[in-house]
Amino acid sequence: MVMRRLKSVVRLNEIRTPIVIVNFKTYAEGTGKKAVDLAKSAAKVSSETGVCFAVAPQSVDVYAVANSVDIPVFAQHIDPITPGSHTGHVLPEAVKEAGAVGTLINHSERRLRLADIDAAVTRAREVGLVSVVCTNNTSVSASAAALAPNMIAVEPPELIGTGIPVSKAQPEVVTNTVDSVKRINRNVIVLCGAGITSGEDVAAALKLGTQGVLVASGIVKAKDPYKVMLEFAEATNKR
Amino acid sequence: MVMRRLKSVVRLNEIRTPIVIVNFKTYAEGTGKKAVDLAKSAAKVSSETGVCFAVAPQSVDVYAVANSVDIPVFAQHIDPITPGSHTGHVLPEAVKEAGAVGTLINHSERRLRLADIDAAVTRAREVGLVSVVCTNNTSVSASAAALAPNMIAVEPPELIGTGIPVSKAQPEVVTNTVDSVKRINRNVIVLCGAGITSGEDVAAALKLGTQGVLVASGIVKAKDPYKVMLEFAEATNKR
Amino acid sequence: MVMRRLKSVVRLNEIRTPIVIVNFKTYAEGTGKKAVDLAKSAAKVSSETGVCFAVAPQSVDVYAVANSVDIPVFAQHIDPITPGSHTGHVLPEAVKEAGAVGTLINHSERRLRLADIDAAVTRAREVGLVSVVCTNNTSVSASAAALAPNMIAVEPPELIGTGIPVSKAQPEVVTNTVDSVKRINRNVIVLCGAGITSGEDVAAALKLGTQGVLVASGIVKAKDPYKVMLEFAEATNKR
Amino acid sequence: MVMRRLKSVVRLNEIRTPIVIVNFKTYAEGTGKKAVDLAKSAAKVSSETGVCFAVAPQSVDVYAVANSVDIPVFAQHIDPITPGSHTGHVLPEAVKEAGAVGTLINHSERRLRLADIDAAVTRAREVGLVSVVCTNNTSVSASAAALAPNMIAVEPPELIGTGIPVSKAQPEVVTNTVDSVKRINRNVIVLCGAGITSGEDVAAALKLGTQGVLVASGIVKAKDPYKVMLEFAEATNKR
Repeated sequence: MVMRRLKSVVRLNEIRTPIVIVNFKTYAEGTGKKAVDLAKSAAKVSSETGVCFAVAPQSVDVYAVANSVDIPVFAQHIDPITPGSHTGHVLPEAVKEAGAVGTLINHSERRLRLADIDAAVTRAREVGLVSVVCTNNTSVSASAAALAPNMIAVEPPELIGTGIPVSKAQPEVVTNTVDSVKRINRNVIVLCGAGITSGEDVAAALKLGTQGVLVASGIVKAKDPYKVMLEFAEATNKR
Repeated sequence: MVMRRLKSVVRLNEIRTPIVIVNFKTYAEGTGKKAVDLAKSAAKVSSETGVCFAVAPQSVDVYAVANSVDIPVFAQHIDPITPGSHTGHVLPEAVKEAGAVGTLINHSERRLRLADIDAAVTRAREVGLVSVVCTNNTSVSASAAALAPNMIAVEPPELIGTGIPVSKAQPEVVTNTVDSVKRINRNVIVLCGAGITSGEDVAAALKLGTQGVLVASGIVKAKDPYKVMLEFAEATNKR
Repeated sequence: MVMRRLKSVVRLNEIRTPIVIVNFKTYAEGTGKKAVDLAKSAAKVSSETGVCFAVAPQSVDVYAVANSVDIPVFAQHIDPITPGSHTGHVLPEAVKEAGAVGTLINHSERRLRLADIDAAVTRAREVGLVSVVCTNNTSVSASAAALAPNMIAVEPPELIGTGIPVSKAQPEVVTNTVDSVKRINRNVIVLCGAGITSGEDVAAALKLGTQGVLVASGIVKAKDPYKVMLEFAEATNKR
Repeated sequence: MVMRRLKSVVRLNEIRTPIVIVNFKTYAEGTGKKAVDLAKSAAKVSSETGVCFAVAPQSVDVYAVANSVDIPVFAQHIDPITPGSHTGHVLPEAVKEAGAVGTLINHSERRLRLADIDAAVTRAREVGLVSVVCTNNTSVSASAAALAPNMIAVEPPELIGTGIPVSKAQPEVVTNTVDSVKRINRNVIVLCGAGITSGEDVAAALKLGTQGVLVASGIVKAKDPYKVMLEFAEATNKR
C-alpha cells in the first residue's frame, strides 16, 4: 500500500483538463466500500481512455479511496482552520495526509461565508491542495475568481440532481461565467455542473468554454457508472 | 486487517465505565499517522490496566485509526442526515462503516441547533453509534438528557484547554449536572471535561458522580501522552 | 403616545391563557403599515371578546406596532447577547425598550443552537421578556422544557403553512408534548401551531391540552384576518 | 411626522462622499432612546458642517431613528429574502419602509455566505437600499467588488474596537483594497473602518484613497460623541 501511495503522489500531480470530477456526496452508492469500488471504476475509465477523472468521496472515505486508486482524490470540503482546537472540523493538513490532492469548497450543499472561502482557498494553497470553489451564478463566480482558486465549478442549484443540464437549460450562465472569471483571473479553470448525465452534456459544457465538469448523481446513482463514465470520457474527445 | 476488524467489533461492544474518551480535535499531534500512534498508546494503556479508553480522531482519520486499534473509536461529529445529497457533511452510516462505534455530538467547538442534536442522537441510535452529547452547563445538560443520548459530557467552555479542571473550579456544575440529568433520564451516563490534566482531576470527577471524563489537550498535547493516560487509568481505581 | 405606552405596560402584564399569538413572519401583509393595521385588528378582537391575542411582528416593526396597540407584542427572535459589539443582531434590551413584552425563540425558520436557546431564555428572563420557545416534536419540546421558558409552542415543520392542523394530523404530537413538558416543568405553558386556520382547529388544540395557539398564514394571509381572529376567539370559549 | 418623513426622503438621496457612517452596533449607548439622541447629534454635526453623516442603528431602532432625523439611516443587516415565511429575519422591504436608505451587509460580526451576500446586494438594489458590503482584507474586498455593491467598507477584524486605526496599522490593506476594488468595478465607493477614533485617522483614511469611514465605538462610546463627530467632519476638509 505504501508503494502505491508514493506512486499515486507522482500521478496525482497530473491533474489535466478536460477533467471530470465525480462528487460522491453522501450517497449510499458512494460510501465506504462502495466509494472504493466506484473510485476504482473511475480509475479504470481514466486508465483506458487517458481522460482525467477525479473523485470526491466523503472525508471519512478519503483515506481508503486514496489508498486504492491512482487518480486524483478530492475532499468535499475543508474548514479554513490551522491545527488546533477545532473539534468536528475538517483540517486541510489531515485531508492532505490522508491522500487527497484537492478539495471542493463552498458546494451548494455546504455554503461558506465569504471570508471563510477566502481563508479556505489560502489554506488549500498553503498545504498543497488544488481548490475548486463551487458557485451558483455568474456574479458569484466572478466574485470567487477574485480569490484566485485553482478552479471554479458553476452549478445553478435549481438544476442540481434534475438531469436537466446547465449547458442546455442556461448556456448563458456558463458562457458568462467563463467570460467573467477569465476577465478577473485568466488562470482560473472553469468547470460546470448540475444536471449532467450524458456524454452529450459533457461535450456541450466543453463547447461553451469550460474545461471540465463536476458531476454527482449522473454517475454515482447511474445503473452502470462505469458505462456512463466511459461515455463522458469519449465525449471529451469529440470537441 | 479484516480479522482485526471483526475482532474489534466484538471488543467495541465493551464500552465500559469508568471511561476516558480522548478527543484528538484537529491537533497536529492527533492527525494522520500521529493519530494512529496516539490511539495505539491509548490501546496499550487500556490493555495494560483494563480501564476503558476511547479515542475520537478527526473524521478523516477514523478509518485508519479504527483499523489499527481494538479500543472504541468515536467520531467527533455527525450530521443529522440520511444518505443523499449532502456534500461535505458527515454521514452517520459512513462513520460507522469506517469503524467508529460512537460519536461526539454538539462539542463546544461544533455546536448544533437543538433540532439537529435531537435528529443526530436519533440517527446515531438508528445506525448503532453510541452518542455522547457535549453540553456547557447544568440546564443544557438537563435539556440534552431529554433527548436520551447514551452519554452527556459537560464541559464549561471557559475552562476548556486551561488546565483548570471543572471538578475543582466548578464542582457544583458537575454535581448539579449529574443530578439534573439523572432526574430526567437515569440511563444517561454523565462524563465531565474541560481542564483535566492529571489523575487527581480524574479521581475528583469520578468522586463527583460522573462515570468518566472527556479529555483533549491534557493528553494529546502532553509531552508523554502514554504516561498521562497511565496516570488517568490508575486514578480510576482510586475512587 | 407616552400615555398609551404607560397604559400598555400595565395591560401587557395581562398575558392570559388561552392565548392566540399571531406571527407576522415577513409576509407583505404583516410588514410596516400593514403590520400596524393587522395588530389593530387583533386588538379589536381582543377588546371585543376578552380573549388574549398577541402579535409578533418583525423586529423592524416592533416599535411602530407596540406604540399603536394595547395587546402584548412579541419579537420573532432575540439573540443571546448583552449590549456590546454585535452588529446586525437583535439585542433583548432593544426589543424590550421598543415595546415588546415577549419573544419567540428558535422558530423553525430561525433555529438556534441549544446553548444559544438556553442563553436566550436566560436573557429574556433577565430583561423581563416572556419567552416562547418553538419546537418541532415531542422530544425537542421536553428538551426545551428543561430550560424553563415561559411557553413552548410545538409545530411540526412539515405542517407549517399547509392548512392541515397539527391537532388533526398529529394529535399525539400535541398530547405527548403536553405530557412530556409538564413532567419536566409544570409551569411551562404549551401552545401548538402549524396548519391552524379555523376556530375548529383552535378548539381542537385546546381540547388536546394546550393553552393556546401560535398561528401565522392562517390569519396574516386570510382574506379577512379580523373575521378569522373573531372565529378563533369564539372557539376558545367553546371548550 | 409624515412631513418630516417626506422631507427626509428628499434629503436622503443626498448621500455624498466623503461620508462617515456611524455603526451603533448593539451598544447600550446606541440603543432605543439613546439611539435617537445619538442620531440627532450626528444630524446636528452634519447640518453644521455640511459633511455627510449616516447612522446605522439596530433594526429595532430604525423606525424611531429614521423618523427623528434627516440624515441617511442604514440598517446593520438585511437577509437575502423576499416577503414570505422567514420568521426572525430582516426583510429588505421592511427596513426600507421603516425609513432606512441603505444597509450594511456582511459586517465582521454578522458574516454571510457568499451566495447570500450576492443575493442581499441584489435585493438591496431591487428595493432601493444603498448597499455597503463589509470586508476583512484586500482579496475579499476584490471579491465583493465583483458583486457590484454601492460601497465596500474594509475593516481588518483584528483592529475593530482597538483604537489602532487601520490607516496607520495596515495602510497597505487600504491602498491595495482601493486599487483592487477599482480595477474590478470603478463605481464602487471604498470606505475603511476599524480603530478609527480621531480626526487624524479620518484624514489618513481619505489620503489613502477611501471616500469615507465606517466607525462604531470611536463615536458611540466616546465621552462626547458630538465633539468627536465634529472633529471627524473637520478632518474631511483637511484633505
